[in-house]
Amino acid sequence: MSNDMDGVHQKPDCLTVIDGGVTAPSGFRAAGVACGLKKSKRDLALIVSEKKASAAGVFTQNVVKGHSLQLCRRSISDHKAQAVVINSGNANACVGPDGFADAEKMAACAAEHIGCTPSDVLTGSTGVIGQRLNIDAVTFGIDLAFGQLSDSREAARAAETAILTTDLRPKSCAVTCQVGGRQITIGGMAKGSGMIHPNMATMIAVLTTDCQIEPMHLQALLSQAVNPTFNRISVDGDTSVCDMVVVLANGMAGNTVIDPGSEGEQILLQALTYVCSQLAQQIVADGEGATKMVDIRVKGARDAADAYRIVQSVGRSPLVKTALFGEDANWGRILTAAGYSGADFDPAGCDIYLGDLQVCSGGLAVAFDEMKAKQILKQNSILIQINLQDGSASDHLWTCDFSDGYIRINGSYRS
Amino acid sequence: MSNDMDGVHQKPDCLTVIDGGVTAPSGFRAAGVACGLKKSKRDLALIVSEKKASAAGVFTQNVVKGHSLQLCRRSISDHKAQAVVINSGNANACVGPDGFADAEKMAACAAEHIGCTPSDVLTGSTGVIGQRLNIDAVTFGIDLAFGQLSDSREAARAAETAILTTDLRPKSCAVTCQVGGRQITIGGMAKGSGMIHPNMATMIAVLTTDCQIEPMHLQALLSQAVNPTFNRISVDGDTSVCDMVVVLANGMAGNTVIDPGSEGEQILLQALTYVCSQLAQQIVADGEGATKMVDIRVKGARDAADAYRIVQSVGRSPLVKTALFGEDANWGRILTAAGYSGADFDPAGCDIYLGDLQVCSGGLAVAFDEMKAKQILKQNSILIQINLQDGSASDHLWTCDFSDGYIRINGSYRS
Repeated sequence: MSNDMDGVHQKPDCLTVIDGGVTAPSGFRAAGVACGLKKSKRDLALIVSEKKASAAGVFTQNVVKGHSLQLCRRSISDHKAQAVVINSGNANACVGPDGFADAEKMAACAAEHIGCTPSDVLTGSTGVIGQRLNIDAVTFGIDLAFGQLSDSREAARAAETAILTTDLRPKSCAVTCQVGGRQITIGGMAKGSGMIHPNMATMIAVLTTDCQIEPMHLQALLSQAVNPTFNRISVDGDTSVCDMVVVLANGMAGNTVIDPGSEGEQILLQALTYVCSQLAQQIVADGEGATKMVDIRVKGARDAADAYRIVQSVGRSPLVKTALFGEDANWGRILTAAGYSGADFDPAGCDIYLGDLQVCSGGLAVAFDEMKAKQILKQNSILIQINLQDGSASDHLWTCDFSDGYIRINGSYRS
Repeated sequence: MSNDMDGVHQKPDCLTVIDGGVTAPSGFRAAGVACGLKKSKRDLALIVSEKKASAAGVFTQNVVKGHSLQLCRRSISDHKAQAVVINSGNANACVGPDGFADAEKMAACAAEHIGCTPSDVLTGSTGVIGQRLNIDAVTFGIDLAFGQLSDSREAARAAETAILTTDLRPKSCAVTCQVGGRQITIGGMAKGSGMIHPNMATMIAVLTTDCQIEPMHLQALLSQAVNPTFNRISVDGDTSVCDMVVVLANGMAGNTVIDPGSEGEQILLQALTYVCSQLAQQIVADGEGATKMVDIRVKGARDAADAYRIVQSVGRSPLVKTALFGEDANWGRILTAAGYSGADFDPAGCDIYLGDLQVCSGGLAVAFDEMKAKQILKQNSILIQINLQDGSASDHLWTCDFSDGYIRINGSYRS
């Protein structure tokens, strides 16, 4: 069984993956500097487009929202932007009117360098909640970053590392494809390790492209690309107050504007989805304490809502995730998590596979080869497939195992 | 702030707590024996009433249901029972028709000893899913248990220990009160440590009472008592396929039958609620890997559904629970978990307290004494209060912290 989706579980043939990040498309420069919010590590990222770009964003659904994110949402409402500035080390959240004023200062400082209006600068912050941002450090960092702006791979990498919190690895992806008579490029970077769950977590992703596209069209395609990718990952079930995905499209590839319903639109959507999918999987693989990446796929559900309930329930079950950490083929915990998901299904029709090894048939134990199960569970990437044989709806979720490392990291993050 | 409820957060004056368990009420005997399902530990519990009793039960809402539990639900449908037999070490779940037949053999074996019909014996099983029960060991154990039946405290204790799985401590409670002109006694025992979440988890509780009450009335009171107690605990968010609470009332106290709406009904409900509340809290305090018990209370919510969403969301957040393990006053995680709960509230009205220390006021950071916060978080019982100031609905949940011990236990439970 399988339910591959183009751009989600495999790379479409029309895309070429290149080594690069947010500086890969024409007309984008970046920098990442250390301004003192974190001890001696990079903590401020800047991305600037040569021209004002079409901009689109998707934001956290948490009713509590960070101040930098609130300003970003307001600034992006005209669907135009020229720069993105993001600090790590402090979420700039839950500190009152001062927090919003600090975010405005971040935007104004960057806008002065560029010579644009502050509302063309998108702001993001990630880190600890409830502590006032050191805005002097941030503006110092922005000044520093403008002196280091470059379109090199190294500059993109510096920006990638400057947005990390508990992440161990920077995350990036870039692809090229043919659209509207030209080769266009899409680059992206992301951060996120804990507080990861569908509908945005403590993650921030920035995509850049030189593709020419109408802003509202870009927003529609971004939303479509985010749904099966960033909204299908879970590390711990927590969603944070600072999560966002933004994309800037500066049109410098010189392609003809992409029409809704055209072949070019399909290619661009596949490319956006693929980049989002790669960044999303990199987040899960770098989940706090993760030793394994887990791909959960459900098919044969009665409807899409039930398929989603089951992948979520299995993907956030601490018992399933600790069993995977322990490399224990405890499929009863998978069936149990599906059972309490709220989905309506008959357990007597349920098949479960670990990799290609069937461990449960019709809701009942199968006498499987324990040695083979051990081999599958020893891999650092594990596929769990659940077939309910009850309908035609399917869904998927990427998650990771739950290790003592997660406890260590989160038992002492703030202090 | 506080939102104490009689029998839930404090003991009503009309109740006297006594040392005892399921053998405390008149006419109940118990035994707990080792029959070989577990390595050298007790694994079979038996409780027998002298007379056929009114019986009521509440069962898991998981769509996957264990075979012993399925038989118990069928047997209790006439609201009469005389005995309860429970094995640990094997959940008797997901093994097909053999599993149901094995449960029937358990009941038949006990019924033969008593001289009652098999449907008067309630069955329960807890342990690993998907492995056939060794029914010969179970019937051997039942024979052994009938030879050891006693109304002593020690016999109740033996039954309490025989139903444990990953639990570290046996769980019991007993109270007396005056009802219908007589002193009646309620005793109870429970197990449960992981897979604990509202609406029954991998927990089993058995209550006994010598109170005389109509079976349907007993069912109504049990459901009312379970809701604010067993349905308000969470260890890891997982709910299992074998969870149940059953109560047997044999009438041997000789009280006049309790009328619905009477004062006696209120006292009995308080007593049932108090016993369930004590057992529920003992389960959480013994949660897998738990180092702290956590009491989460929400008030000022717009409606009951929102209050429930928030206590659940905060109570199952791995980030909140690991921060508590790390004794870190990271209230931002509490506010964040409330924010993504799905409840509709204005964060600008939200106050948060750790113990009696306010850490968040109107959604914003309060400059609190970090030393005092440390002292509060060092205790092994922690109260978290959230006041939304947005309405009059309240709710509560008992949970525990999330430690590396949980990972250790669950990374290797099956093997």
